Amino acid sequence: MAESSPLENVRVVLCGTSHPGNIGASARAMKTMGLASLYLVNPKRFPAPEADAMATNATDVLERAIVCATLDEALVGTLYAVACTARSRDLSHEVVTAREAGTRLAREAVRGSVALVFGPEKTGLTAEDVSRCSVIAMIPANPDYSSLNLAAAVQIFAYELRQSVEVVDSYPQETYEIAPFEAVENFIQHLEQTLYDIEFLDPQQPKRLIQRMRRLFQRARLEKEEVNILRGILTAAQKARKGNS
Amino acid sequence: MAESSPLENVRVVLCGTSHPGNIGASARAMKTMGLASLYLVNPKRFPAPEADAMATNATDVLERAIVCATLDEALVGTLYAVACTARSRDLSHEVVTAREAGTRLAREAVRGSVALVFGPEKTGLTAEDVSRCSVIAMIPANPDYSSLNLAAAVQIFAYELRQSVEVVDSYPQETYEIAPFEAVENFIQHLEQTLYDIEFLDPQQPKRLIQRMRRLFQRARLEKEEVNILRGILTAAQKARKGNS
Repeated sequence: MAESSPLENVRVVLCGTSHPGNIGASARAMKTMGLASLYLVNPKRFPAPEADAMATNATDVLERAIVCATLDEALVGTLYAVACTARSRDLSHEVVTAREAGTRLAREAVRGSVALVFGPEKTGLTAEDVSRCSVIAMIPANPDYSSLNLAAAVQIFAYELRQSVEVVDSYPQETYEIAPFEAVENFIQHLEQTLYDIEFLDPQQPKRLIQRMRRLFQRARLEKEEVNILRGILTAAQKARKGNS
Repeated sequence: MAESSPLENVRVVLCGTSHPGNIGASARAMKTMGLASLYLVNPKRFPAPEADAMATNATDVLERAIVCATLDEALVGTLYAVACTARSRDLSHEVVTAREAGTRLAREAVRGSVALVFGPEKTGLTAEDVSRCSVIAMIPANPDYSSLNLAAAVQIFAYELRQSVEVVDSYPQETYEIAPFEAVENFIQHLEQTLYDIEFLDPQQPKRLIQRMRRLFQRARLEKEEVNILRGILTAAQKARKGNS
């Protein structure tokens, strides 16, 4: 693998991990596939001796791990995020296999930071978490027992990603610039405010609709220029309303 | 997966495993991919509470595990055996990837018993062991750190095998309804009109921006319900403006 590999642009984000041993085992799984960038959102316990023990010779990954308070923090700067889940969800999102996720991440990682996002061992990612991601990915598994250990799931996603990276090298490069996660979030906040201003939204119960809009626009992979246009439109709508009040 | 799956013909053979926890984690990895037949050649300690603990709900695989004194015993009745190794060997043998091994095993397992053979954690399979197998398989990994945990390696081989056997059967069906082309077009026209109303857009030269918005929203694969929400927002913005003019 070349010195500046797209794998360097891949973050593994573990949310609310209960068992530090799983963090260590995940670090080892990552390193075997050439991934080094680990983000921990609210780990129950970290650093921890169990994490070091399970990491064996991948403790360097643990040492450089970044602990965050929120998923948003962990996703700042990413262009594409894959929500890795074991079960289907009501909030519908595009669902791809781990293999397809590997292909897509490999393609995006040529251009910038991307993320593989995993939820807590018992409960998985919340709908809120998923709405921040571009796509859902599942490991096709035994329908009667689909419960992979967290580190085992990390291993498979990292493996699929690595298998894809070399293939994708020769793809034609798209020229437009994808907006980073936080630019889309700022747009969503602007949208929410505008929807209050134009009295479309009831401040008492806005949450579900905003989450839907977040899901739509994170999925759409907005370009930077599109975000600018959309925010221009929002500002115009706000002005129209202000003139009226 | 159909009742009589080729997966039923696949044995996982662990030789000389040192840590019973790895046996348990391997059983779990197997079960997630629909494998049930575990052979243990001279395990250091089995049964063991660590094995049960790591197997979680795959203890049934452990209970039915067959303990053998030699690899030959474990391979009785098999038509094809894959030696899973992490490092290259002098003994010249055909070497394939885990993916190719999955394809071959899936093909052979239609006809009879096959085996995935793993060596001890520290040392891997001996040349003697490998000589009993049909082919060597390796997981393409980070050349600087290729040491997968035993259960992680079992997970990947079992996963690849299942992917080869499975025809997108158990693939989750997306439940949401995508808006048809014309619904998105009507939304785009509504958007264009609204952008005039709120004076965001110059009627003299609107075309390029509308085209960009079309590209964004056609790309996003809008759902029917999302179109309804977005059009509701547009109507609210139009009302806000009308009140003002």
